[in-house]
Amino acid sequence: MSPGWVNDENAALLTDLYQLTMLQAYHREGLNGIAVFDLFVRRLRERNYLIACGLDSVLHYLEHLHFSQEALDYLSTLPMFKPEFLDWLSGFRFEGDVYAIPEGTPVFADEPILQVVAPLPQAQLIETFVLNQITYQTGIASKASRVIHAAQGRTVVDFGLRRMQGTDAGMKAVRASYVAGIEATSNVLAAKVYGLPPTGTMAHSYVEVHDLEEDAFSAFAELYPGTTLLVDTYDTLQAVRRTVALHKLLGDRFHVGAIRLDSGDMAELAHEARIILDEGGLEHVKIVASGSLDEFAIAEMLARKAPIDGFGVGTKLGTVADRPYLDSVYKLAEYNGKARMKLSKRKSNLPGRKQVYRFFEQGRMVRDVITAYDEPSDGTPLLQCVMKGGRRTAAGTVTLEQARAHARDSLRQLPDHLLSLEETDRPYPVEVSHRLRETLSRLEDELEAKASQIVNPSDIA
Amino acid sequence: MSPGWVNDENAALLTDLYQLTMLQAYHREGLNGIAVFDLFVRRLRERNYLIACGLDSVLHYLEHLHFSQEALDYLSTLPMFKPEFLDWLSGFRFEGDVYAIPEGTPVFADEPILQVVAPLPQAQLIETFVLNQITYQTGIASKASRVIHAAQGRTVVDFGLRRMQGTDAGMKAVRASYVAGIEATSNVLAAKVYGLPPTGTMAHSYVEVHDLEEDAFSAFAELYPGTTLLVDTYDTLQAVRRTVALHKLLGDRFHVGAIRLDSGDMAELAHEARIILDEGGLEHVKIVASGSLDEFAIAEMLARKAPIDGFGVGTKLGTVADRPYLDSVYKLAEYNGKARMKLSKRKSNLPGRKQVYRFFEQGRMVRDVITAYDEPSDGTPLLQCVMKGGRRTAAGTVTLEQARAHARDSLRQLPDHLLSLEETDRPYPVEVSHRLRETLSRLEDELEAKASQIVNPSDIA
Repeated sequence: MSPGWVNDENAALLTDLYQLTMLQAYHREGLNGIAVFDLFVRRLRERNYLIACGLDSVLHYLEHLHFSQEALDYLSTLPMFKPEFLDWLSGFRFEGDVYAIPEGTPVFADEPILQVVAPLPQAQLIETFVLNQITYQTGIASKASRVIHAAQGRTVVDFGLRRMQGTDAGMKAVRASYVAGIEATSNVLAAKVYGLPPTGTMAHSYVEVHDLEEDAFSAFAELYPGTTLLVDTYDTLQAVRRTVALHKLLGDRFHVGAIRLDSGDMAELAHEARIILDEGGLEHVKIVASGSLDEFAIAEMLARKAPIDGFGVGTKLGTVADRPYLDSVYKLAEYNGKARMKLSKRKSNLPGRKQVYRFFEQGRMVRDVITAYDEPSDGTPLLQCVMKGGRRTAAGTVTLEQARAHARDSLRQLPDHLLSLEETDRPYPVEVSHRLRETLSRLEDELEAKASQIVNPSDIA
Repeated sequence: MSPGWVNDENAALLTDLYQLTMLQAYHREGLNGIAVFDLFVRRLRERNYLIACGLDSVLHYLEHLHFSQEALDYLSTLPMFKPEFLDWLSGFRFEGDVYAIPEGTPVFADEPILQVVAPLPQAQLIETFVLNQITYQTGIASKASRVIHAAQGRTVVDFGLRRMQGTDAGMKAVRASYVAGIEATSNVLAAKVYGLPPTGTMAHSYVEVHDLEEDAFSAFAELYPGTTLLVDTYDTLQAVRRTVALHKLLGDRFHVGAIRLDSGDMAELAHEARIILDEGGLEHVKIVASGSLDEFAIAEMLARKAPIDGFGVGTKLGTVADRPYLDSVYKLAEYNGKARMKLSKRKSNLPGRKQVYRFFEQGRMVRDVITAYDEPSDGTPLLQCVMKGGRRTAAGTVTLEQARAHARDSLRQLPDHLLSLEETDRPYPVEVSHRLRETLSRLEDELEAKASQIVNPSDIA
C-alpha cells in the first residue's frame, strides 16, 4: 500500500474536496475578483498569549503550488470535474499577496496572523493546507514558550517524536519549539533539516542488554565521554551510587556529563541523587529529567527546589496535550472591494482588509488595536507583506534563527502577568478601531436585513 | 528554508539520536544477538478498547529502511560517529521478523500490538518511527470507532485535515478512520492515495462572495446536481426556507441532496429544518451536521432525536482531542534468549517472547490471555507473523478494505458494555499465563537482588 508521503508534487491535492468544487464553480461563474482572507484564532482557551508560527511552511507551499499531471489525472477520474476546468487547473499558480505577523510574535484572539490578498480561487484553495500548518505550529510554539518559561532558564530539549501525531508533526514541532526557545532535539532528521543540534542519552534497552548496569554505564561513557546516563532502569539511587563507584574505579576513563531521571518522584530523587553525586566528588555531573513532563510538572518540581539542570520534554509538548488544536479559522473578509462576513453571534469575523497596531510603554506591550488596513494609527504595525505576486519579499525570507531571536525579544516585551501558567483574569487588551466597528455594524445590519427577507419564489425570480 | 518533507529516502534519520548512538555502541561491543521488543499500551485511560492500526505504515518503513548517502554525509558531520560505524550503517537493512495483531482488531493494555524479533541494532533503531505511526493511527482508529458507534448507523465522514497536527496526520487519520468505519473524507490526496471516496459541500466563503444567498445556492446546485448546501452563513432556517423556495421556482433544475448545519443548536435546528423541508416537498433532502463534533456531541444530538442523516467530523477526531496520545511504549523483552525487563512498580513490562490468545463464547470475546510464545493454549492466537527476514508475509499484505472488514467483524464480537462511551467498571479481562507470571516473578527477584547489591569499586573490578 502507498506510504502516503506528502511532497511538493502532491501537496496541491492535500486540500478539502470542496475547495476544488468551489474553484470550479468560481471558474464557471467568472468569480475571479480579489479576495481577502484572514487566518485568526477565535479564542485563546486558557492560554494568555500565542506565538505565531508556521509562516515559512506556508510560503514554501505557496511558492511551489501546482497541479502535477498525476494530480490532474486523478481529478479527471472523479465525476464532478470537467475537462475545461482541469485544463485551467493545470496552469494554476499562487500569484497573490500575503501579509503576516512574523513568526515568533505574541498574538491574540481575533488578530489576523495571516492575511491573503489574491484572486478568489487562489485565496480559496489554500485554506486547508495553510490552516493545517499554522494551527499546529502556532499551537506548539505557544506551548513550548510556556514550558521554557516554567524551566526558568534551565535547558529544555525536545524528546517527543515517538508519540507525536505522525511524521510531519515530528518535523514541524521541532521547528516551532525551536522558534519558541528549546535548545536541541532528539529528532535527527529535524536537526539536519533545520540545522539544530541533535541530542540524546541512552534507553532502558541499552542498560538491559548488558548483564550488569555498571557494564552498560562504563561502555557508554568510554565511547561517549561526557554522556548522560539513564539511571532508572532498576533502582534510581543505586544506579547513582554505581555511577560514583565507577568514577572512583575508572577515574578519567569514566567521564559522565549528566544523569537522567525518567520515573518516580523526580523532585525527591533529584535531591537525593544530588547529595550522592556531590558526596562522591561528582559535583560537576548534571541532573536532567524526562518522562511525562510539561510546564506544570516542571513548575512543580522547581517549586520543590529540585536540583534539576535540564528537561527532556516529549509527548505532552509534541501533541500539545492539554490543547491539541487551536480554534483557528480562515475567513473571507472582502471580495471585489466589498466587506464580507458570516453572521453569527459566536462565529463572526471582522470584515475588510486590516492591520494590527501594537502599542508599547516603557518597552512593554500594553494593547493592540485592529484597524482597517488604510486607517492611520500610531503604534507598530504587525502585519507585514511577506509575499508579493506569489514571490517572497525580504520580510518573507526570515531565517529560523531570526525568528527565534524575534520570539525571545518579543517575549521580553510581554506583560509579566501573561506569562503565568494559569489563565489570567486580565487578558491582554485587543481593541477594534472605531472605523472597523462601524463597518462591522453596518454590514451586520445589511446582512440581517437581507437574511430576514420573506422568502418566496417571486423574490428570487 | 527546507519544507521538511519525510520520504523513503530520509526516513531512516527520523529517529531519536540515542538510537544511533546506542547502535554504534552495540556495534562496537558486538551486541548483535537477537532481541525481542514489544510495542504495547500501558493504560487505556478511559477507553474501553483500542483498535490496532498503523501496521501497514510500519511494514512499508521496514521494507524501505536504509541510510542514503546524504544521510550518511550528515551523520559524518556530527562529532560522535566514527567512519567505521557509518560504513556499517551504509549497509544497514531491516532483516528481522515482525509479529503483529492485525489492523482493525480490538486490543487492550499490556497486549503486544507488535513484536519485533531481530538482531538488536535493527530492532532498536526502528523504535521511534514505529511508535510514531502505531500510536497515532491506533489512537485515531479507536476514537473513530467510538464516533461511528455513536452515530448509530448514520454516515460519518472525515472533515479534519485543516486542524490536524501536520500533513502526515492528515493522511494517516484518513487511513485509520477508514479502517474503523468512516465512509469518506474531504482530504483529496488521502482519497487518491488510499482509494476512498472524496466528499465535500461548500464553505461560507462561497455563499459570501455571492451578493444573494439564493444565487450561491442555485449556481452550486446547477453545477453539482444532488449537492449539499451550507445553510448557516446568515440565518439557518431562512436559508432552509430559501432552499424550498428555489425548489418551487426552479424545479428539477435545482436538485439538492442535503443541507449542512454547522453552528447553533444543531439538534433543534435539525428538527425545525426537517419540518420546513418536509412541508416544502423536500422530504428526500437529507440533513447533515458538522462543527466541533465528536462521539459525545453526536450521541447527545441523537438522544434528542435530531433528524440528522450524517455527520462531518473534524478536529476532535483528527487530533484525538480528548486523548491526543496513547501510553504506548516499545520495550525490550528478551535478548540473546534471556528475558529482560525494566524494574518498576508502574512502568514494568512482561518479559520474553509472547503470544496473545483470545477466547470467545457464543461469538463474543470473553477474555484474553497473554502467554509465552511457545506455551500451548486454547483460544485464538492474535499475534501473526507479518514479516519474515525483512519481507512481508501473506498476513503482512492485508489491503485497507480487508482491514476495514476485519474491524467491522471484530467489533461485532466485542462485549456490548465496552461500546459505551463512558469508562466501563467491568474492563475486558486480560490475564497473564501462569508460566509468564512465574518468569516475571523470577526475573524481578533476580534484578532486585542485583540492583540492591552494595555498590563499591571492588564489586565492579
